[in-house]
Order: sequence, then C-alpha cells, then structure tokens
Amino acid sequence: MEIVDQTRLPHAREIVSLTSAADAAHAISAMQVRGAPLIGATAAYGLALALRADPSDATLAAAYAMLLATRPTAVNLRWALDRVRAKLAPLEAAARATAAWIEAEAIAAEDIATNRALGEHGLRIIERLAAERDAPVQILTHCNAGALATLGWGTATAPIYLAQVSGIAVHVWVSETRPRLQGARLTAWELRAHGVPHTLVVDAAGAALMRRRRIDLVLVGADRVTRNGDVCNKIGTYEKALAAQDNGVPMYAAVPSTTIDWTLDRGDAVPIEERDPSEVLTAGGEPIAPAGTAVANPAFDVTPGRLFTGLITERGICAASSTGLSDLFPEHANA
Amino acid sequence: MEIVDQTRLPHAREIVSLTSAADAAHAISAMQVRGAPLIGATAAYGLALALRADPSDATLAAAYAMLLATRPTAVNLRWALDRVRAKLAPLEAAARATAAWIEAEAIAAEDIATNRALGEHGLRIIERLAAERDAPVQILTHCNAGALATLGWGTATAPIYLAQVSGIAVHVWVSETRPRLQGARLTAWELRAHGVPHTLVVDAAGAALMRRRRIDLVLVGADRVTRNGDVCNKIGTYEKALAAQDNGVPMYAAVPSTTIDWTLDRGDAVPIEERDPSEVLTAGGEPIAPAGTAVANPAFDVTPGRLFTGLITERGICAASSTGLSDLFPEHANA
Repeated sequence: MEIVDQTRLPHAREIVSLTSAADAAHAISAMQVRGAPLIGATAAYGLALALRADPSDATLAAAYAMLLATRPTAVNLRWALDRVRAKLAPLEAAARATAAWIEAEAIAAEDIATNRALGEHGLRIIERLAAERDAPVQILTHCNAGALATLGWGTATAPIYLAQVSGIAVHVWVSETRPRLQGARLTAWELRAHGVPHTLVVDAAGAALMRRRRIDLVLVGADRVTRNGDVCNKIGTYEKALAAQDNGVPMYAAVPSTTIDWTLDRGDAVPIEERDPSEVLTAGGEPIAPAGTAVANPAFDVTPGRLFTGLITERGICAASSTGLSDLFPEHANA
Repeated sequence: MEIVDQTRLPHAREIVSLTSAADAAHAISAMQVRGAPLIGATAAYGLALALRADPSDATLAAAYAMLLATRPTAVNLRWALDRVRAKLAPLEAAARATAAWIEAEAIAAEDIATNRALGEHGLRIIERLAAERDAPVQILTHCNAGALATLGWGTATAPIYLAQVSGIAVHVWVSETRPRLQGARLTAWELRAHGVPHTLVVDAAGAALMRRRRIDLVLVGADRVTRNGDVCNKIGTYEKALAAQDNGVPMYAAVPSTTIDWTLDRGDAVPIEERDPSEVLTAGGEPIAPAGTAVANPAFDVTPGRLFTGLITERGICAASSTGLSDLFPEHANA
C-alpha cells in the first residue's frame, strides 16, 4: 500500500510504501495518514499485510491489537478492523491474506462511493445557498476532512468539489487548525491543487468572520458521532458551531455511517486523544513558549448535536439527534 | 524611555531605548510594545520625545499624526495623544517638552493605579469562586492583558496576581493566541516569572475545556469598549465568550476607563486592524502553508456585551451594557 506522507505536506509530496502491519500502525500513529475514513482503510490494509506475512490466529490478534491502539477517537478504525477480522475468522489460513486484501479494497471502494454520495447530498445545500445570492457561496471548514482524509473526494469537501464541477462559484475559508495545522498544510494544499478559491485564517477568526456576514455555510467532518447526534471532531469544531448558531449560519457535519458509533449514547463518552505537548510548544517546528511550560493538548472536542443544522450522511441529511439518526438508519434504532 | 522588546520574548529579554517619536511609533507598529494601556503610554512618551527635539506646533502636529497612525483599534492611543496635546496647546514652546514628559509620566502612574484598582475589584470575583471550592480557581485568559501590556500588573492579570499574594490558589489556562502567539510567548512567560501555575493550550481548546468543567472564570482585556458595552479585543475573544455562555462560566473583561470609547455606540463601528498575511503564513518563523496562499488576518474581534458577565473597571464592576457603563461613569452618560 502506498500513501502520501501527510506530515511532509505542503513542503513536499512524498510517497511512502507500507509493507507491514507495523508500517501501517506507524503511519496512523505518526499521522502520516489521518482523517477517520483513511485511518480505517489503512488499518484494514494493515491487517491484510500482517496476514500476508503470517495467516495465523496469533498474528491476526496481535496485528488487530496493535492497529486498534494507534489512535483512540476515530471509530472508523475499530469498525474497519472488526469488519476485516469478521471476514477472516471462519476462513482457513491459506485463504486469509487474499480475503483480507479483498475486504480492505472493498472498504476503500465503498469510501469513494460514500464520499460521492455525501457530496451529492451536500451539493443540494450549496445549490440552495447559491440560488439566493449573486456572489460565491462562502464556506468555512476546519481541519482537513478532504480528499487527503479519505480515499475519495473527502467528506466535508466532496460537496465543494462537486459544486465546482457544477459551475457554482464557491470560496472556502480555511481555518488553520493548530496545533498540527491540517487546515494550513493540507486543506489549503488540496484546494489549491484543485483550483478552488480559498483564504486561510487563524482558528480564532471564525466567529468574527461569521459576525461580519462573511460565511454562508460551515462544513466539517467528524471522527465519531454518537447515537444522539453529538459530533466528536477536531478541537475547535465546538467553537465554530457556537459561532454559527449565534450568527444564524447553517452548519453541517459530513458523516459517513462508518463514523457513527451506535454503542455510545452521548458525545461526552467518546475517548478524547491527548497528544504530545511538543505539538503545542512548537509551531512550524520552532519553540514558541518558554521551555518547560505545561501543556494540555486534546486533539478533539465534542459538539452537541443541537448546534448543527444537520448531518450529511451517504443516505441523506438528517437532524443531529437520536430521532434524526434512527429515522435514517432504522436498522440501528433498536440495536 | 526604555522598553522590553516583546517581539523577542520569550527567547530573549532585550531592552530597547526609544529616543525619538519615530522610535516610539516604530515600537508600537512593530509590536515591540503592545497592549492598549502600554500603547497609550508609549505614544505619550513619543510626543514628549518629539517636543524635546523641537517644541514647534509643526512638530507636535506631525508627531501626533505619525503616532496616531501606528495602530487603529486600541482607543487608548488616541486618548493618550489627545490628553498630552491638550496640555501642550496653551503653553509656550520652551515649556512644552517638560510638560509633555510630566503628562506622559502621569499617564504611566495612573495606569499603575488603575491596574491596582482593577485587580482589587477582580479579586473579589476570584475570592467568591475560591470560597465555593477546595481546589485552585481555574481561570482562562486569552492573549496578553498582563503586566507586559501595561505599566502595572496588567488588566486581566492584576486580579490573578493579587489572588496569588492573598494566598488564594489559582491556575491559569493560557490560550496561545495565534497568529502572534502573545499567550504562548508573553502570558506564559510572565506567569512563569511570577510563579503562577499555568497550562498552555491552543486557541481552539477553550470551549472544550469549559464543556469539561475545567474552567471557573474567563478574564480578558479589551482594546476598545463602546458605549453599549460591546468589547473589541484580540481575535478569538468572541469565541471564548460564546463558549463561556454555553457552559455557564462567568466571563469578565478588565477595562480601564481609558479603553472606553464614548464616541461609538456599537462595537461593530470599531475599526479592526488587518495585519500582514505573513503572520498567518508562518508560525515560529517557519512557513506553514503553500506559498502564495490568500490570507485574512483581522487582529481583533467584537464580542457583544450580552455575552459578558460584567466589565471590571477601576471604579468597580458593571454590566456590559449602556446602563451598566453610564451608571458607573455618569459624566459620560449624556455626553
């Protein structure tokens, strides 16, 4: 499996080959790959790589555990690993590596189709906003829920790319996303690569832009959505949602159903990854605070569903609530 | 006049001598000094330096214009320049330089006294919170409204330092304040220098900390407060205020009366400084986004008064509203 090393962007576009489960685990934990859907797919390929080397039960269990431990918040990781493992369990050893590879490829292909479906549903929102104005539709996004976070055209970005293809004028406000700057490094890079007009701002500027009527729509991704519609996503999403509500700006999370955790009732139950203090103590690789300064570095926050206008899923758009989700996914409603 | 060059902190503490009005103007525009009260005092000294070189009307007018043009948002700048100029206008040339120096020193001394009064009023808030809990009072601040921003113990920080002196346990959450990182570079540095426990976080983490009940109080400064209680302050203050409201966390702005602009009815009328894109395109001095990326870099935002629990002034605490301010400053109520 080949990946773009996202830690090197935008300065260099380096391709890295993953040849073992340990490579895949490292790629996820070091954030060479990131974004909930891409984490899931990479983990699935990681299991396939492990079984290619040794199709035993012990290797399967060890690779599963190693890959699951890489990052705690995005539920797609567990979902993808469980899906591949369930396929393999009944098989004889000789068939496992090929079956794992086929399943990993199926996950990747489904992600492409899911992105496309999210994009089509989200495009309807942009079309409506475009019909109401003569100027480009102004869209704010936070972090990178883009093509780089998925196998397809992204979750939050798929509607934007489809709007561009449809000839709808859009302009994207890119929130830089400290500490790892996925907005500045990744979203700005991919929007530039695809010719979508955009402007970079610091994270703290989002609310001010909304108050000044510069934003028509907020689109973000999600790392885990709970049964009640709470959205766990990149730290700072909650602040954007509060600002959107205070200014009457519609805000949606683009949520592939693989990102919904039907086992959790509320967002506050989602484990929040606490990352290394060095990410906050440096910026652009340089120290920015007195040496030894204490740091808290939660990578995600939880936005109550009530603050979202809706969730965009591959089945359509629903309210960010228990009712909204269970109406769209009735098979999970009573699970 | 000697200043600490704040652009060099925390890596070096360099003293710079200002020997001309041009030096003072450069120190303000390059942000070697920053913070509304310190900007005002530095401008006052700048006028004094100009008149020491040449006490003519032409020099006074030119220095006034040059200093006023340095930064647009903090109203203390205009207030201090107007105050010094009004003192000088009726004087003969020979007396002007000394009179300007005396007035600049008076502004500096009053700032120290004002900080102290703000601190005493704010201390009452911290004392009440401390009485309700056995743990340290958890205070979030944004940017630097500290000793480095004033001639005294700061505006937002004065209550914190007085609490420390009173033996009240406090812990400060320092929001890093992109793009110029005044929180990480300056607030962390001065809290460390004075032994106040603190933890650094990215700007986007404030709301998540409040949701997790980690914050008891938000204290910020202000660059300009309008008659209706709207608060113009460092970009990101509005997002903190929305988060405080959503989580029932009390939030106050510490506002010396010199920061109140009685000529403006609403915060949306305050001119917002748009700073250079390079501040956003770099972090820690290193490029963080694709070269040529478009940037918006508003340095301040406007928080509606309704989101503040109150304003802490040197006369006491009032509601962030027309009534609140005019009750406390009746001499301006009908002006």
